[in-house]
Amino acid sequence: MAIGRHLLADFYCCEADFLNDPARIEGDLTSASTTAGADLLRTCFYRFHPQGVSGMVLISESHLAVHTYPEHAYAALDFFTCGRVTDPRTICELLVASFRPKVVATECLVRGQHLAEDCHK
Amino acid sequence: MAIGRHLLADFYCCEADFLNDPARIEGDLTSASTTAGADLLRTCFYRFHPQGVSGMVLISESHLAVHTYPEHAYAALDFFTCGRVTDPRTICELLVASFRPKVVATECLVRGQHLAEDCHK
Repeated sequence: MAIGRHLLADFYCCEADFLNDPARIEGDLTSASTTAGADLLRTCFYRFHPQGVSGMVLISESHLAVHTYPEHAYAALDFFTCGRVTDPRTICELLVASFRPKVVATECLVRGQHLAEDCHK
Repeated sequence: MAIGRHLLADFYCCEADFLNDPARIEGDLTSASTTAGADLLRTCFYRFHPQGVSGMVLISESHLAVHTYPEHAYAALDFFTCGRVTDPRTICELLVASFRPKVVATECLVRGQHLAEDCHK
């Protein structure tokens, strides 16, 4: 038994203008969440000056997070979903279509995989 | 060259009452952030009914996130810090002292490690 899957995605060589647009990024993250079947709870975004955006989307199934570095054409994202309905790989694919990175590196970890552990031992 | 470190922590066998207390959890996460030298930007927490808390803390260095499952005495946390000042392991140690899990499993990944990639190739 496990709680969910946590996918970490590094998007390299994105278009710098997109990485500096908090409204578009927030819109695309919330849209990817709901398209993937997640239930949206809260969003929280911040624009750095002179550049960069950080943001988080809370969903009933856990969260999405993004941190962009336009100066490196790079964005660090992660998608954590509990349960079986929402697949973090679907969210990732949808956001690759938005961010259009030339290079993507992902790693997917299982969260809470030792839940059967007996706490009273 | 890399952007930062992302530490994923599974806390098993925590005290259930603590896992259901959003104010204490938010206080301990924000306190751990600043104690570890991070610059606090925004917080966003949500309490599920009948139980469970999800929350995110945006810091200039990236984020902290938490999702608790009192029914499993389990909490999934992650700490992403860019730069060298704030060490996600310090944040993790501080929160182990708050959540008091009997079992901890962590994994630390380097983010943005292919930044030198030439986007114009």
